Amino acid sequence: MKEFTIAPDPSARNLSESMQGVDHTGAAITLPVVVEKPLTLFLNGQEIVTMMTIGDYPEYLAIGYLLNQNMLQTDDIIAGVDYDDDLGVVVVRTDHETNFEDKLKKKTQTSGCAQGTVFGDVMEKFEEIELDPAAVLKTSWIYALSRKINRQPSLYLTAGAIHGCVLCEGDVPLVYMEDVGRHNAIDKIAGYMWRHKISPKAKIFYTTGRLTSEMVIKTVQMQIPIVISRSGFTAWGVDLARQSGLTLIGRAKGKRFVCLSGAERLIYDIDPDQVPEESTKHQRKASR
Amino acid sequence: MKEFTIAPDPSARNLSESMQGVDHTGAAITLPVVVEKPLTLFLNGQEIVTMMTIGDYPEYLAIGYLLNQNMLQTDDIIAGVDYDDDLGVVVVRTDHETNFEDKLKKKTQTSGCAQGTVFGDVMEKFEEIELDPAAVLKTSWIYALSRKINRQPSLYLTAGAIHGCVLCEGDVPLVYMEDVGRHNAIDKIAGYMWRHKISPKAKIFYTTGRLTSEMVIKTVQMQIPIVISRSGFTAWGVDLARQSGLTLIGRAKGKRFVCLSGAERLIYDIDPDQVPEESTKHQRKASR
Repeated sequence: MKEFTIAPDPSARNLSESMQGVDHTGAAITLPVVVEKPLTLFLNGQEIVTMMTIGDYPEYLAIGYLLNQNMLQTDDIIAGVDYDDDLGVVVVRTDHETNFEDKLKKKTQTSGCAQGTVFGDVMEKFEEIELDPAAVLKTSWIYALSRKINRQPSLYLTAGAIHGCVLCEGDVPLVYMEDVGRHNAIDKIAGYMWRHKISPKAKIFYTTGRLTSEMVIKTVQMQIPIVISRSGFTAWGVDLARQSGLTLIGRAKGKRFVCLSGAERLIYDIDPDQVPEESTKHQRKASR
Repeated sequence: MKEFTIAPDPSARNLSESMQGVDHTGAAITLPVVVEKPLTLFLNGQEIVTMMTIGDYPEYLAIGYLLNQNMLQTDDIIAGVDYDDDLGVVVVRTDHETNFEDKLKKKTQTSGCAQGTVFGDVMEKFEEIELDPAAVLKTSWIYALSRKINRQPSLYLTAGAIHGCVLCEGDVPLVYMEDVGRHNAIDKIAGYMWRHKISPKAKIFYTTGRLTSEMVIKTVQMQIPIVISRSGFTAWGVDLARQSGLTLIGRAKGKRFVCLSGAERLIYDIDPDQVPEESTKHQRKASR
């Protein structure tokens, strides 16, 4: 796959709105603001959930959500996905019958930026998954990925108030998804990986969001062995990462980072003092 | 009420854990990480939701959640609130019978850091609410509040990866709540306001989180006329604020801010160039 096979399109008119207001001097200003709209997901005849999303890639979002919630298995046959922009509805159809009445009754709302739901049996599967033991993470990749991702045009740089998640391999960012909820961004990546049969082996998952229990659970569910975040951790997120052997890198800004799980995958191949300052500047400029 | 009647206690042992890892130089480090644990809320006999929270103020969180979801009305009589730390369960008991079978079937997951749920009839009530037309916001208050809140010791400053919400009046921060999900922090403030019969009139709500549809809906639900955030906006959040006459201030950092709704409440009483740089530094230092 080539670098940024999928990348944000900040110029896409339907993803942000130009809005008028006043600034700290009282001057009239106009600025781009990311859209946020409801998308209701049906699996066959059954309404599953309504998600708030920027609305790009509804098919990937729908499939990825169902996969990460264990409502679809990777070997399930999807007969079709229908999306109606006006109604804000996406319907996923499978060959086999599905019914999640009981499952839908028992939801756990997850933390902070995660905002998703986790079902009991997701944890059961979580405990069975073994992550790629051969995967490694060169520290030079952490810096290269941060630099490339922060340089890439995005809604985050133009409008802010949005999360980004990037599927990477080595020092190459492959699939860059943004959404108002980072759980949507990671679900869209899961849907893309399923649709294009991309193996999670040796993959690296980069996120702008905090490393909460939900982000760790979804990453392990996707069988990706390494996560890098610009943000911090929650204790349960770290505990789950350690249980599953996930390499967890947080607070990755400029030359700094912290690894709280799976440090055995780290290869220190670069002197941090040789990391170009630039990447930090980009991050600061992007901070909104 | 006095300044910071309630404020975070970063030294509270049960709110953060000391965790070991390695840093970008390969050196072993120990850092504080915020806890995140499930709390299951029952209203009388009925399980409502499981929330991920740092676990302080479960009573305020439970009551505030139910109020902001329209499952409790402000004039309802609460017979008791029982909290079991070991089981991670909080039960709210009312004098009148409650049943939300249908309501619980139809949830909307909200955006980004919000992570909450919004029920259909919340929007119905939203349209009826009229916010205090007499409330004003002096720009000097925006700077004073930011400075005071950023100076106040918090889990955010010590551990990061947590959101803060502060109920304020004039330039005085009154109630400062933190949580892994900012929707929890605002619900805890709603519960506190109900318990202590605090009027929302002339109040200002300060948050570290993005101004999404859910945060606007909850603020209006609480009848607070003014919101200030360090973060950005979503378009639907701005639309809802304009519909309800909510004053919406975002990107409040250092001397800068943007107002996208309710600018008629603004009183420019200070030259932004006279704002001490310090507040910016504090914010940057706190950025994790």
